[in-house]
Amino acid sequence: MNYQFSDRMSQLKVSPLRENAHKNMEQKEVISFAYGYPPVDAFPMETMGEIAATMFSEFDPESFLQYGATEGYPELRRLLKKRLQLVTNIPQAGQEEVVIVSGSSQAMDLAVRVLCNEGDIVLCEEQTFSGAVNAIKGYGAIPMALPMDLEKQTIDLTVLEAMLKRDQQKRIKLLYLIPTFQNPLGTSIPFEERKKIYALAKKYQVIIFEDDPYGDLLYQGEAIPKIKTLDTEGLVIYAGSFSKILAPSCRLGFILASDPILEKLILAKQVSDSHSNFFWQVLVAEFMKHYQFEAHVASLKGLYKEKFNLMMTCLQAFKEEELSFIEPTGGYFICCKLGEEVEEERFFDYLEKQKVAIIPGNVMSVAGKGYEKSFRLNFTKPTLKEIKQGMRIIAEGLQIATYSKAM
Amino acid sequence: MNYQFSDRMSQLKVSPLRENAHKNMEQKEVISFAYGYPPVDAFPMETMGEIAATMFSEFDPESFLQYGATEGYPELRRLLKKRLQLVTNIPQAGQEEVVIVSGSSQAMDLAVRVLCNEGDIVLCEEQTFSGAVNAIKGYGAIPMALPMDLEKQTIDLTVLEAMLKRDQQKRIKLLYLIPTFQNPLGTSIPFEERKKIYALAKKYQVIIFEDDPYGDLLYQGEAIPKIKTLDTEGLVIYAGSFSKILAPSCRLGFILASDPILEKLILAKQVSDSHSNFFWQVLVAEFMKHYQFEAHVASLKGLYKEKFNLMMTCLQAFKEEELSFIEPTGGYFICCKLGEEVEEERFFDYLEKQKVAIIPGNVMSVAGKGYEKSFRLNFTKPTLKEIKQGMRIIAEGLQIATYSKAM
Repeated sequence: MNYQFSDRMSQLKVSPLRENAHKNMEQKEVISFAYGYPPVDAFPMETMGEIAATMFSEFDPESFLQYGATEGYPELRRLLKKRLQLVTNIPQAGQEEVVIVSGSSQAMDLAVRVLCNEGDIVLCEEQTFSGAVNAIKGYGAIPMALPMDLEKQTIDLTVLEAMLKRDQQKRIKLLYLIPTFQNPLGTSIPFEERKKIYALAKKYQVIIFEDDPYGDLLYQGEAIPKIKTLDTEGLVIYAGSFSKILAPSCRLGFILASDPILEKLILAKQVSDSHSNFFWQVLVAEFMKHYQFEAHVASLKGLYKEKFNLMMTCLQAFKEEELSFIEPTGGYFICCKLGEEVEEERFFDYLEKQKVAIIPGNVMSVAGKGYEKSFRLNFTKPTLKEIKQGMRIIAEGLQIATYSKAM
Repeated sequence: MNYQFSDRMSQLKVSPLRENAHKNMEQKEVISFAYGYPPVDAFPMETMGEIAATMFSEFDPESFLQYGATEGYPELRRLLKKRLQLVTNIPQAGQEEVVIVSGSSQAMDLAVRVLCNEGDIVLCEEQTFSGAVNAIKGYGAIPMALPMDLEKQTIDLTVLEAMLKRDQQKRIKLLYLIPTFQNPLGTSIPFEERKKIYALAKKYQVIIFEDDPYGDLLYQGEAIPKIKTLDTEGLVIYAGSFSKILAPSCRLGFILASDPILEKLILAKQVSDSHSNFFWQVLVAEFMKHYQFEAHVASLKGLYKEKFNLMMTCLQAFKEEELSFIEPTGGYFICCKLGEEVEEERFFDYLEKQKVAIIPGNVMSVAGKGYEKSFRLNFTKPTLKEIKQGMRIIAEGLQIATYSKAM
């Protein structure tokens, strides 16, 4: 058989992240700063086990084993809206509805499906989540990189406005942003800049997809109000996830959006997979209702903050001509850049030989290039001991790969 | 905001099945022959509860709460392949691989995504699963109805070959079939006819999607070998599901296909939602390995066969000029047709007034018309008592809606 596949598939290739993930995870001796995974002690096993036991012994099976509504378990949707209002301070959750999806990956996949024809454009931060870029390409739409102003931790607004202005045919359908604790940059767009971005979206009538899977994980400074809080016009699709605050495998995320958008998203979700797993939807709702969910999130923040502080201490010890980094205020990642004097290939080779895993900058680059000297470090998955060992190897790598020193 | 949605969304509308499902399910007094749901006593609560308890207390959380491989839990994939060889008698499962997906709905969604450009054609049985038709439309492809030969319980092969022959531009990319216990017809394509269908697919190099969510539920006669068993060329995508033999809400299905197809399906799955829920993948694997899964399936078949037999007894009591039906050998559905003398609107109105829910034929029609006198009955969800009551009301409806008698 001479197989013929759809044109849209020719745009996609296996994510190098995924390709290596399982291979590397199996090598137990590797110290991994690579993947955006929670650590094994982040899972509230006892509470989840207790809820599951109650469900199987006391709940009506129809409530969590039968087919369910595409938009999700009503009680979870209600609790999420309440949490978005009270904890995340998004007043729009009082007026708009949420739909439960299978992780924020599916949220973006559905948004592109609903909003973009083939050949349409989605603007993204120049380095961003590769899953989102693949979702865009997967429908034949075109991801286009917005340059960043790293000093101000925001996108270049002059370029953004120029692109929107030039777009006479309205091919730009979506502005995909991770405004808080960005992946891979760790940056958070300041509130004043968020206002300017929203004003431009409003002026040019472009929808913003605010991807916020890390939003709860603030370690220092003040929380910045979400772009969604500015949304007077129903322009912002806000997506959150339980992957980073409960368990990735439960594949639960959600979208808050205006009715006309949500209606289409629900339709697309129905066609994709009918609904997300109801066992987990009910379990999470029970957790939020009866089991101190906020205390669990607070304990996660404590766990990660300790690792974050250690990372900061280690990174601050480097000279800027060796390695510079952007100090995040929360989230999962720190973006580092090798100094001019450091030969990147020798540095990365050394890490590989010493079994320290990182993500090279180009993997997260929309253009697939331009970030040869950058790399991303995750600090949630490794233990404190692994962080110390790993950072020592990174320090050695910097020594070995610095031109002046090696000669 | 003046919202603009993608062209592909204009093809989709909310399934009338889903639209009413929750409204009707809440009305407890309704006797429902409508939805393809398992009954509440079909869920093996004790076994599932026991496995969940073991998982939360003894298993490594990384194995079921962390991010997992897109293609699924290796042990579940291995057990499924073994089951496909031993229980379902598909020798191809010895050579080909499986990928775990979120129900067979997602299997078809991914297949269309991977195989069809906008404007491509997918051939379907003229009455079929509306979710599959929506999956086709959802990527801008065109579902085209194949006429059925209901006497022989198969598709019209002359028309099929004429369509394939005429298709000079190779726009027909897929032949979507539910060959066993068809939805809504209840028909099963005989083995001789399956051979002819496969021969045509081979001759014209068209891929067959064999959707088999009901395949395990045989109540009488011999099991017919799957089309997949004939697949010497890697032409058949075989999709199965745990929705009908374990629990719909776990959203677990699988695809068996040749490597080149599977590779693309995994890529599409990765972009869609990363992977399916691993908690359930591990739970199902444990069930299959340690908890007499085949005995559970056998007990389900016993439960449904009793209901099936009662339905047959009730339906056989009707005169053919009132109501005819196709006798299935298994599955979830029976397709009925009102006689010429029965006024369909009065009949359906009566059922609605008496709170007996059925699915009208046109809901499952690819063309959306032509089946005014047909309707689908599910017999797995209602209790034996409800079946008796419901069938009595159907008998009354026939009396009231028959012209000669009403005048």
